[in-house]
Amino acid sequence: MRQMHFADALTARVKNTSPVCVGLDPVLEKLPDGVQRNETGVRDFCIGIIDATKDIASCIKPQLAYFELLGWEGMRVFWDVCAYAKEQGLIVIADAKRGDIGSTCDAYADAYLHAGSPIDAITVNAYLGSDGVNPFIERCAKNEKGIFVLVKTSNPSSGDLQDLPVGDEAVHEHLAGLVASWAMHQVGSESNFSCIGAVVGATYPEELRYLRTLMPLSPFLIPGYGAQGGIAQDVKHGFMPDGSGAIVNASRSILYASAGTDWRDAAHAAAAAMQTDLQAALHSEIA
Amino acid sequence: MRQMHFADALTARVKNTSPVCVGLDPVLEKLPDGVQRNETGVRDFCIGIIDATKDIASCIKPQLAYFELLGWEGMRVFWDVCAYAKEQGLIVIADAKRGDIGSTCDAYADAYLHAGSPIDAITVNAYLGSDGVNPFIERCAKNEKGIFVLVKTSNPSSGDLQDLPVGDEAVHEHLAGLVASWAMHQVGSESNFSCIGAVVGATYPEELRYLRTLMPLSPFLIPGYGAQGGIAQDVKHGFMPDGSGAIVNASRSILYASAGTDWRDAAHAAAAAMQTDLQAALHSEIA
Repeated sequence: MRQMHFADALTARVKNTSPVCVGLDPVLEKLPDGVQRNETGVRDFCIGIIDATKDIASCIKPQLAYFELLGWEGMRVFWDVCAYAKEQGLIVIADAKRGDIGSTCDAYADAYLHAGSPIDAITVNAYLGSDGVNPFIERCAKNEKGIFVLVKTSNPSSGDLQDLPVGDEAVHEHLAGLVASWAMHQVGSESNFSCIGAVVGATYPEELRYLRTLMPLSPFLIPGYGAQGGIAQDVKHGFMPDGSGAIVNASRSILYASAGTDWRDAAHAAAAAMQTDLQAALHSEIA
Repeated sequence: MRQMHFADALTARVKNTSPVCVGLDPVLEKLPDGVQRNETGVRDFCIGIIDATKDIASCIKPQLAYFELLGWEGMRVFWDVCAYAKEQGLIVIADAKRGDIGSTCDAYADAYLHAGSPIDAITVNAYLGSDGVNPFIERCAKNEKGIFVLVKTSNPSSGDLQDLPVGDEAVHEHLAGLVASWAMHQVGSESNFSCIGAVVGATYPEELRYLRTLMPLSPFLIPGYGAQGGIAQDVKHGFMPDGSGAIVNASRSILYASAGTDWRDAAHAAAAAMQTDLQAALHSEIA
């Protein structure tokens, strides 16, 4: 099967569904009624969430930490869940936040972005600079994959390093300049977006607005909507004027919308409400 | 079994052996003659390296990337290798470079630093700021574990973000100040070192010297010796005047000291040569 450029595939999928990205953060203690609190339960739960949201969501974002917490058995579930999501037509983004020296990033890039991997893109931490990012960029070009570089994260203390002033810009703005330069060489012919994206949190709307101008070719992965406090009026600043160029992640507000046996219906309803909420905000932006 | 404070255990072990830390970066293509190029071979190779170096090395540092590259089967080998190294009396440092928002770092911290884990410490990426580090610090206090926060890494492009000027200091120096403040509350009664350590590359000796003064309570994990170009005269700046307070990692120069069937002997000889080299440099420093 011929692969599409990552950003072209992402853009087409968002157009046909929505910018909703469902984050898979399966926590044993939070699994709803009727789901086993073990690896089998996590697998069932993730597949149930995928089935419940796949007609709405463009992307699914499994968070590695929750699978690693279950040991190697959890990693087996992780790969099974990624394969299932891919079969269902979802764009699969592994939230790995990996970053290391070049030779080690070669291993990470081959681990997650090899040809034939069910994973379409991973998140990358660039604290080690360009030679920790280049191996991922190479695999993007070679295997039609994507990355989302952490630029400005959604958590309360993200400013500890990311907002430090470097001359007249913040560290995260300087990094945005690097991301923009990496993105230039990897642009899809249909979408005009790059396979080198950026993570920018919904919880910092002013930064989101400015970073959109600094990285015009990068798709944005916007976490922080829902449980972390970001709202649609905040995240709309991460989109291009035509409503393209971003996906918005919600995890807890969809996964745990109900603690009862109606969790599938509740997840579907939460994803649908998020889709409506985002569309209204984006429509008001375009209008 | 009562656990010792991480820094006390590390300091005692270094005193009884050496500051040598053996990095386990098992690459299938580089496995020596007679070792199967699959998960079984990786397990045999890692156990062989542990046995060959355990009378010299204080620490063993498996790099997660190379195990993740082998899928979930690789993660099973990773946990087996960590358990074996721990049984042999080595301090086990998982080179994970994890870092995320607080709730996700809770999962990473529980995954690797739970009570009874064979892993004594992991490496942490602090780009997300203090609330991505706190969950690890909590597990250090609760379970007698340690962390090494990436401050100044050994790779050529580490300066892209880490050396950006923030007022009259570099980003990595500002982070060193944060690490020093975290370290203050977690000091071992025997060693006078904290369980909150720092990663500082051997390849930047001037920075290493200055960072030693900024983080006097933190054990240093110094990568970059050997294949990456760091020499003993460089790394000695990461030690305290009495020769304590640091471990020096070498991976490729020990693991792949021979491509033949004598790889165990060659690894032992390489570790012994490194021990001698470090002792000579540290002795010249003390003298």
